[in-house]
Amino acid sequence: WWNPMLQQQLCMHISLLFIFLFMFSKKNIFIQVTASPVTDCLHPLHRKFTRLPHLAGTEQNLRYAEQIRKEWLEFGLDSVEMVPYDVLLSYPNKSQPNYISIVDQLGSEYLFTALVKVKCLLLLSLSLQGDLVYVNYGRTEDFFQLEREMGINVTGKIVIVRYGKIFRGNKVKNAMLAGAKGIIMFSDPADYWAAGVQPYPDGWNLPGGGAQRGNVLNLNGAGDPLTPGYPAKEYTYRFSLEDAVGLPKIPVHPIGFHDAIHLLKNMGGPIPPNNWKGALNVSYKIGPGFTDDFRSQKVRMNIHTNNQLTRIYNVIGRIRGALEPDRYVILGGHRDAWVFGGIDPMSGAAVVHETVRSAGRLLSKGWRPRRTLIFASWDAEEFGLQGSTEWAEDNAKLLQERAVAYINADSAIEGMYTLRVDLNTYCHSCSLLLYAVFLSFSLPPSPEEGEEGVSLYDSWHKRDNWTNDRDAPRINKLGSGSDFEAYFIRLGIAAGRARYTKNKITERYSSYPVYHSVYETFEIVERFYDPSFKRLRAVAQVRGGLIFQLADSLLLPLDVNQYADSLRKYAKSIAQLAQRHPEQMKMYEVSFDSLFSAVENFTIAARDFHERLQTLNREDPLQVRVMNDQLMYLERAFIDPLGLPGRPFYRHVIFAPSSHNKYAGESFPGIYDALFDIENSADPEKAWEEVKRQISIAAFTVHSTAMTLTPPA
Amino acid sequence: WWNPMLQQQLCMHISLLFIFLFMFSKKNIFIQVTASPVTDCLHPLHRKFTRLPHLAGTEQNLRYAEQIRKEWLEFGLDSVEMVPYDVLLSYPNKSQPNYISIVDQLGSEYLFTALVKVKCLLLLSLSLQGDLVYVNYGRTEDFFQLEREMGINVTGKIVIVRYGKIFRGNKVKNAMLAGAKGIIMFSDPADYWAAGVQPYPDGWNLPGGGAQRGNVLNLNGAGDPLTPGYPAKEYTYRFSLEDAVGLPKIPVHPIGFHDAIHLLKNMGGPIPPNNWKGALNVSYKIGPGFTDDFRSQKVRMNIHTNNQLTRIYNVIGRIRGALEPDRYVILGGHRDAWVFGGIDPMSGAAVVHETVRSAGRLLSKGWRPRRTLIFASWDAEEFGLQGSTEWAEDNAKLLQERAVAYINADSAIEGMYTLRVDLNTYCHSCSLLLYAVFLSFSLPPSPEEGEEGVSLYDSWHKRDNWTNDRDAPRINKLGSGSDFEAYFIRLGIAAGRARYTKNKITERYSSYPVYHSVYETFEIVERFYDPSFKRLRAVAQVRGGLIFQLADSLLLPLDVNQYADSLRKYAKSIAQLAQRHPEQMKMYEVSFDSLFSAVENFTIAARDFHERLQTLNREDPLQVRVMNDQLMYLERAFIDPLGLPGRPFYRHVIFAPSSHNKYAGESFPGIYDALFDIENSADPEKAWEEVKRQISIAAFTVHSTAMTLTPPA
Repeated sequence: WWNPMLQQQLCMHISLLFIFLFMFSKKNIFIQVTASPVTDCLHPLHRKFTRLPHLAGTEQNLRYAEQIRKEWLEFGLDSVEMVPYDVLLSYPNKSQPNYISIVDQLGSEYLFTALVKVKCLLLLSLSLQGDLVYVNYGRTEDFFQLEREMGINVTGKIVIVRYGKIFRGNKVKNAMLAGAKGIIMFSDPADYWAAGVQPYPDGWNLPGGGAQRGNVLNLNGAGDPLTPGYPAKEYTYRFSLEDAVGLPKIPVHPIGFHDAIHLLKNMGGPIPPNNWKGALNVSYKIGPGFTDDFRSQKVRMNIHTNNQLTRIYNVIGRIRGALEPDRYVILGGHRDAWVFGGIDPMSGAAVVHETVRSAGRLLSKGWRPRRTLIFASWDAEEFGLQGSTEWAEDNAKLLQERAVAYINADSAIEGMYTLRVDLNTYCHSCSLLLYAVFLSFSLPPSPEEGEEGVSLYDSWHKRDNWTNDRDAPRINKLGSGSDFEAYFIRLGIAAGRARYTKNKITERYSSYPVYHSVYETFEIVERFYDPSFKRLRAVAQVRGGLIFQLADSLLLPLDVNQYADSLRKYAKSIAQLAQRHPEQMKMYEVSFDSLFSAVENFTIAARDFHERLQTLNREDPLQVRVMNDQLMYLERAFIDPLGLPGRPFYRHVIFAPSSHNKYAGESFPGIYDALFDIENSADPEKAWEEVKRQISIAAFTVHSTAMTLTPPA
Repeated sequence: WWNPMLQQQLCMHISLLFIFLFMFSKKNIFIQVTASPVTDCLHPLHRKFTRLPHLAGTEQNLRYAEQIRKEWLEFGLDSVEMVPYDVLLSYPNKSQPNYISIVDQLGSEYLFTALVKVKCLLLLSLSLQGDLVYVNYGRTEDFFQLEREMGINVTGKIVIVRYGKIFRGNKVKNAMLAGAKGIIMFSDPADYWAAGVQPYPDGWNLPGGGAQRGNVLNLNGAGDPLTPGYPAKEYTYRFSLEDAVGLPKIPVHPIGFHDAIHLLKNMGGPIPPNNWKGALNVSYKIGPGFTDDFRSQKVRMNIHTNNQLTRIYNVIGRIRGALEPDRYVILGGHRDAWVFGGIDPMSGAAVVHETVRSAGRLLSKGWRPRRTLIFASWDAEEFGLQGSTEWAEDNAKLLQERAVAYINADSAIEGMYTLRVDLNTYCHSCSLLLYAVFLSFSLPPSPEEGEEGVSLYDSWHKRDNWTNDRDAPRINKLGSGSDFEAYFIRLGIAAGRARYTKNKITERYSSYPVYHSVYETFEIVERFYDPSFKRLRAVAQVRGGLIFQLADSLLLPLDVNQYADSLRKYAKSIAQLAQRHPEQMKMYEVSFDSLFSAVENFTIAARDFHERLQTLNREDPLQVRVMNDQLMYLERAFIDPLGLPGRPFYRHVIFAPSSHNKYAGESFPGIYDALFDIENSADPEKAWEEVKRQISIAAFTVHSTAMTLTPPA
């Protein structure tokens, strides 16, 4: 049965991946990979690339790119190229730093926030002043509560919101839609402090002076704001700033909670609901403006950020596939960091680098994968996924014909508790691919203390199994907020990510406390997050295992039955959402029957497909290619070139980033958005017509994707 | 060298295609097909399907569909299915026929046109009256001349234009844009009479009572007006009529020239330029309105056409490919006719039917093509390519991954002079594909009298060689106006058509005189156009030869070098158009360098690709598939999912139907449209910015398509 064709030992002296490949049996595919417990090279690697700040577009980030290119070539890749784009970035103005102040009735500023040089892409350079309104997290539901229940209008006001729960760009969009003229965001200890942990450097909590950087663009997948849909090359036509995509039209500024206390402590207006209260020693009153004694004081925003056309550099390395060079498996992660990038992204970039080294050693021993492997070090992720999106635009025609899968490699560790895996639905709660990956590592050990003798797989299964008992560990939906977006949501390429994360039940803070702050250093990883670098290694094993498995299996390790299960679940869930309005559904004749019927067709087609797979003649290269193509193009078939309403670059009918939180994934987003807040629609008939149109699009898409799984003629 | 793998005799008793296949040599592909000169089955076939009127959506057209399905199954196809769609058609109101009248000052109608039951899709049922304005052919340039040189405004007037030169829907659009409240179209003998020919039934000229039917939609590739982008299935969401795509907002009516004389003879206003004068014995004065004596008379349009959701039926037959069932070669032509369809479309439908019969006989002898063959009998082509477009929408996901080529089979004979071939640019003035096709027929004989011993190829070469001397016969650009549109322009599938046509130099009338009239009968073909049915057979040999060649060659017979040549020519031509404005180009910094550079990249990539093809190991099925995929997906790479400005379903960056005449193909249509009439732009800066944007899109598209031809990794 097992017919070994390749046996290569990988990266012995460096310990990361110690791979034995036993492959291409007649009936199955098997890769054995073991992690050897010798010295670890991730540690020095991580240190090397976090010594200096390397924001996108800076000299230092280019230097790191050149170093990566040089080393990847030394590792033995077939080719490595620097791929530049000229995109719109923005930087604080050094001679005129951004800050917030309080101004008295005489016009004198008497309180200043720290002069954080925080980037927020911004159309205008300006100072403005006004009354504050506190709007909790600035979510859609927070603004609804503010306007509809509290009756407070923020038109012409400056809103102040706490960070957390949703992507900050959505907070800014919500503030703009509500009519605010500026927005201040602060990190509240309620959201950025773990219990019983000291602020950095004594622990890994966010200090009071620390502000979370981050872009506030609403690009909806456009990449560079000036060249939506096309790569930002030298010759590319650029929109004017006025026509640019996704820039905020109001000033935005982030602050730490030390500064926030001063802005919040004298706020007047109503007492907030309890779930609007953070952990600062202030009342969290809503406003507008300050209490009686301070009523004449205003808050002033002094924002002078510069937009700048800036050259960025992706580094792209390749290993040509031996048998199917025109099939691509991509491992990509970003390199640019807000400051040092100790966690985000260099804990992930180190994993990519090490995977390239491992692949290079395999090559030197005569191995070559069946399909082409592409490695990417993206630039300007922090400015709205620009490097990865521009490359996706540049290579869209190749990728849509040839890409098998994209595995993302952003931060490898965001917590210290367990592995977390987000995949497209081929592998949702999936068996085959990840099972094979873990098998292929001969069940590498858990990196956790006290779990000696426990495998990573079992540790993950036990730790991330907090909602119900399942046979397999939890696999989550892909949202957005990292570089897989253009590949998955725009181009329809199967995608996934894996990282080490916190315990979501017991650790309720947002992301990790020092996220996007200056305290994201090498030291915070070495001292707190992963002193032995074993967690990083575990993530490397999963990411590397995924791409080697995808690149080398005779049959693509994708399970379409799982997609059918997920579609059924999503369809049921979106129908339930609509059924909260039984009268309207009756009145406007809204039915989900066509969608359910399409899902049923898909289920049957998927089952039949896997049955045919059993009888496939694996010795016939054309027959194998035909079925692999059906697997590869399945995800592609969910793409609608017309895109979602108002979001032309989100083209996946089954998944999109939520319109209310880019970080979260929404299933059947077209229907979801049409239903959103429909009870308050100004024109209910028109609104329900749009629901019906979206159901029809979803039904067609699922049905016609099912047809791609049937025998091709 | 020649390694015969298949030798089959096709359709001996019926004479159409007498094919010997000698194929799959190591280094080359060769198909030999000869036409045997025995009894002809196209003649009875053509008679059978032209006995009764069979407008789309009628009982008779469904009966023909069922008959075709039954016979295709009998011929031996693997499967034949009826594929229904429910689309918006329109029919005259039987109780209230449409007509035009002249009304005197007392309101009495005293002159009536024939009560032609002519379909024009129309939003409103109404009668209106007003003054006529004559606008020549109703082309963009005619309206420009009318408004700008003659200073005549048609707002609130009824325009009368002659048929010809451009697609009638563009005339209607131009009239609407100019503000007219109605439009009458007539066939002028200058455009619908051949010299020295009698009107039907004594000859093949259009009688004075004959009116040209035809849709006047401006669908821009949308198919069914109520379901743009998606197939018109039962569950599909439908727009309201108000939101429907492409319906005229003003009444439209076609008349013959007998009626036109009465409307034109008393016209007042200026004497027209000479090139506005037709061949009727009237002055062709422009108006508005009638001369002094008749000034008080008005023209009334009485239009009561009904829009109706109607079920239409495509018939789809298949032969599963033996080795690459997931590669599709399609031969499709429409079945629905305005009346009998003697020329349009049944001269083409007979060819498809006969090709299916031939393929069935080959199958029965053990032959099976390498790739899948799909045969289609489209419905509702006459209502805006609806059947073919809905099927393309329904199967878009399959087609974009799998379709190798689409060969169209509308009217096989529009004239009696020579073969005419329109192909996508793979084969523009191409050698390989058509050369192989002709070779494969062992140079079948010319059907022309006096050309005994001359091959069809040599006859074509000699006859259609009227602009310059070339080594190969002329191949023309594809425009639109027939069912290849959705396949080529929306999906990017290589496409072609072949038909017998008139001498374009000496025969200057539009299309053929009886086009879309009730006089398009079996008899006009049998008595005038092709008494021996040899011309029809010649067209069948070319169309059938093309699809068999495409389906059975080991390597796809497409030549990308030819595409490079054409791109260079088109780029030069569009740049010359812009260079008519040297000052503006300088002022707005407009440059075509990026496009020229992209074309150069393409040229090099194409040359290198063909060099690699020479060294390809043809015994390796994966290597062959990889290069065939590059050939197949080349056309696909020219598709931009964002579409052309305002025309989201025209997505081919290199070709689109002209915005001013759907029948004509425009190269680099985005740039062309941006440049159109730019000297009269209200905002020149904005207009030139759009030119620059379109150049950038074209350059990117050509460049990134070139990249698909380079080695895949």
